[in-house]
Amino acid sequence: MSYTFSRIVNTDFATAVANVTEELKKEGFGILTEIDIAATLKKKLDVDFRAYKILGACNPPFAYQALMAEEEIGTMLPCNVIVQETKDGKVKVSAVDPIASMAAVKNPALEKIAGEVADKLQTVIRNLA
Amino acid sequence: MSYTFSRIVNTDFATAVANVTEELKKEGFGILTEIDIAATLKKKLDVDFRAYKILGACNPPFAYQALMAEEEIGTMLPCNVIVQETKDGKVKVSAVDPIASMAAVKNPALEKIAGEVADKLQTVIRNLA
Repeated sequence: MSYTFSRIVNTDFATAVANVTEELKKEGFGILTEIDIAATLKKKLDVDFRAYKILGACNPPFAYQALMAEEEIGTMLPCNVIVQETKDGKVKVSAVDPIASMAAVKNPALEKIAGEVADKLQTVIRNLA
Repeated sequence: MSYTFSRIVNTDFATAVANVTEELKKEGFGILTEIDIAATLKKKLDVDFRAYKILGACNPPFAYQALMAEEEIGTMLPCNVIVQETKDGKVKVSAVDPIASMAAVKNPALEKIAGEVADKLQTVIRNLA
């Protein structure tokens, strides 16, 4: 079982970040956090890393349902979407599959919510140019 | 299997956030992101929620190792630590167990790193006042 929904896109890195942000918005997700991995690793470890961003995406009604169903689920929120340059120079966008990341949480109410969010994230990746 | 390391602490909410930030620092984790769930839900949905913060904790050398071992692991980074008021008015701190959250990723090199990070996060929770 894969733990992400992902695809290679035919745009440059910055355009991919803008496009996935726009597609997330259409499915009700805002970006709550953004981590520039290359900049962070340069600053903390002085190493060079390829372009790689982590966007923390949150669909508030679903996050609220999840938090009501499972007290500690904040340890697995928000849903991350990453944009990276691959080792062979392409641009790849990947969204976490919450069914996979939350599999260790044994809670049927949460599983239902994770399934609905998974469908939305899959739609986001499918609709990327 | 639990998916978190957690404990009830005997301090107020703000002190718990400060204390866990300090304990994380001792184990090499910085806080890269911070989400105030109560404020976010108030703003987006106009609902009241108990005090609940998500801290995105990152230990740069381990994050670098994880990213070198597994291209899409950014979908599961950083490691979240949450501080919340529980329904019965206590303050609880929980760190994600990366072995549980990353269980769907079948990669022995990553499992080793996740185990080392799990040990560190368990130490953080154990050392909380």
